[in-house]
Amino acid sequence: MKAEYINPFITATSEVFRTMLSIDPVRGQLYVKSSEKLPYDISGIIGMAGEASGFVIISMTETLALRVVEKFIGEKKDKIDDDVMDAVGEILNMIAGGAKQVFSRTGTRFKISIPNVVSGKDHVVGKQKNVKCLGMTFKVDDEVFVIEVALKEGA
Amino acid sequence: MKAEYINPFITATSEVFRTMLSIDPVRGQLYVKSSEKLPYDISGIIGMAGEASGFVIISMTETLALRVVEKFIGEKKDKIDDDVMDAVGEILNMIAGGAKQVFSRTGTRFKISIPNVVSGKDHVVGKQKNVKCLGMTFKVDDEVFVIEVALKEGA
Repeated sequence: MKAEYINPFITATSEVFRTMLSIDPVRGQLYVKSSEKLPYDISGIIGMAGEASGFVIISMTETLALRVVEKFIGEKKDKIDDDVMDAVGEILNMIAGGAKQVFSRTGTRFKISIPNVVSGKDHVVGKQKNVKCLGMTFKVDDEVFVIEVALKEGA
Repeated sequence: MKAEYINPFITATSEVFRTMLSIDPVRGQLYVKSSEKLPYDISGIIGMAGEASGFVIISMTETLALRVVEKFIGEKKDKIDDDVMDAVGEILNMIAGGAKQVFSRTGTRFKISIPNVVSGKDHVVGKQKNVKCLGMTFKVDDEVFVIEVALKEGA
């Protein structure tokens, strides 16, 4: 995976949060996803396949998910339910779609699959050892979420 | 999603388990994945995209995962670690690859993304409400695992 491949996802994340959620997340650390996986409460996962293949993940705490989803659907939620999972999937869909557009302009074409959303206290989303995956932390006040991307050319 | 779209995945699952793991799982119930999501200990997720898009999931208990992985890598594991997650991802990769070949013969072409493996006691893998997803239970002695597939034509 080329390191710069994460950039369109980072930009798309900021844009989606700003325009759809009126939240301006502060970019934090770029990291290489290792076997030391961070536990989160809710994660969206979407696969990409075509000339390049991979996945993009968004992971966050329940607290932040509820806050984000309230902004997105205009309804207060006090726990992770189907609406919250739907919304997290849709937000990730928009991020992946935004990044896909940028890649198509530079000639790297892929299609995106249908999102899954995983919930469960302290679950971890792993990857296979031979897959290179980069992550970026974002801060929203005191809460952190991450975007993690693996993308390699050739299917 | 056409109901028969799950069939190549069911066949590929049986084949992969038989040939790679020397396990002959017994097919159980076909079900429509609802919002009543079943909790599992480990799940593999792989996205599909192309003329059709969707995902395939394999979910199982830790007990069964350890047994399956021991057969696959020839090494006894007593907890879910990176090797176990790798192996579950690879098994799902082979199932998706097998199903993809069958679809390509009937003219439905898609590519498969890179697997993610989720671990965490009692996590649930959800989907968006408007996505139709079918599942099939398989029994291996007293343990159950499931394969869940969503696949729709048009990306």
